[in-house]
Amino acid sequence: MSDRDFTIGATRRAFQGHVFAVDVADVEYADGTRVTRDLIRHPGAVAIVAYDEHAVYLTRQPRPAIGDPDSLELPAGLLDHAGEGPLATAKRELAEEIGKAAAHWEFVVRFRTTVGVSDEETHLFAATGLRDEAADSGEDERIEIVPWPLADLDGALAASRDAKTLIGLTWLRERLG
Amino acid sequence: MSDRDFTIGATRRAFQGHVFAVDVADVEYADGTRVTRDLIRHPGAVAIVAYDEHAVYLTRQPRPAIGDPDSLELPAGLLDHAGEGPLATAKRELAEEIGKAAAHWEFVVRFRTTVGVSDEETHLFAATGLRDEAADSGEDERIEIVPWPLADLDGALAASRDAKTLIGLTWLRERLG
Repeated sequence: MSDRDFTIGATRRAFQGHVFAVDVADVEYADGTRVTRDLIRHPGAVAIVAYDEHAVYLTRQPRPAIGDPDSLELPAGLLDHAGEGPLATAKRELAEEIGKAAAHWEFVVRFRTTVGVSDEETHLFAATGLRDEAADSGEDERIEIVPWPLADLDGALAASRDAKTLIGLTWLRERLG
Repeated sequence: MSDRDFTIGATRRAFQGHVFAVDVADVEYADGTRVTRDLIRHPGAVAIVAYDEHAVYLTRQPRPAIGDPDSLELPAGLLDHAGEGPLATAKRELAEEIGKAAAHWEFVVRFRTTVGVSDEETHLFAATGLRDEAADSGEDERIEIVPWPLADLDGALAASRDAKTLIGLTWLRERLG
């Protein structure tokens, strides 16, 4: 046991939203200290670095949470379909968001987006061997597809302020290095 | 105007926590479509890549939100002191979390941690010219300081699952490359 070990005790759901919930939880450390923490419960997400010999396929989409109508990002989506794993979600989102299927899929990394307050985890994949395969999400997504030249990955990194996109494009720059 | 432009209308505070709040907001797009979104309001944070000729200074700390008692991360902290800008917060957190001051500070990048649901922004700095300068946060932080050898940055990248830490250590690997 270290003084960092803890158990989570009584938990009260304080907010239930469409994407995430908030729990107020009692946290007890191994030394007996008790604290209360507000914990965001999020289903997790996938993001995809989809590229061919010319371009990486990005999106622009409105993000009310950050007040940005034109957020430049990797294609991505929530793990919100029961029983659908991260890779299957990534395949579905790639078709829905940029109208592509991929012959080759590679797991890159998974990471927690904001460890202080949320359990959100993002699974990052790379997709190559792309072909057209449109799918309709049935949602009002307002997404513009942006094929960004591989020769200007630095420009994409400068133009995006989204953590998953920075991680994915930095990975791609090293891969292509 | 594009079909991605929106305005945020009536907003109701649905949860007020210690670190963040949740607003339920009406969002109206330029074409008249209206949707409701749950928006996390977060004060923002800083993170620091502090390194000398031998090591980068990481921390291990308990993170109840992800169920991890030993999360390996860059030193970091919330922008929760009124009137204190990101660089001043970074300097304070470096002293509180790893007991160091730095002669040289460099802004690296700022990014949004989870654009779908939260306005949280993290400001990433690099700090060099380190010297000992302990400060007591007055908080129960349970933080272990982990000097990680620069020769094994790949090992730190493999051992951390925290987005800000992946972004910071990847930046450092390129910088030292």
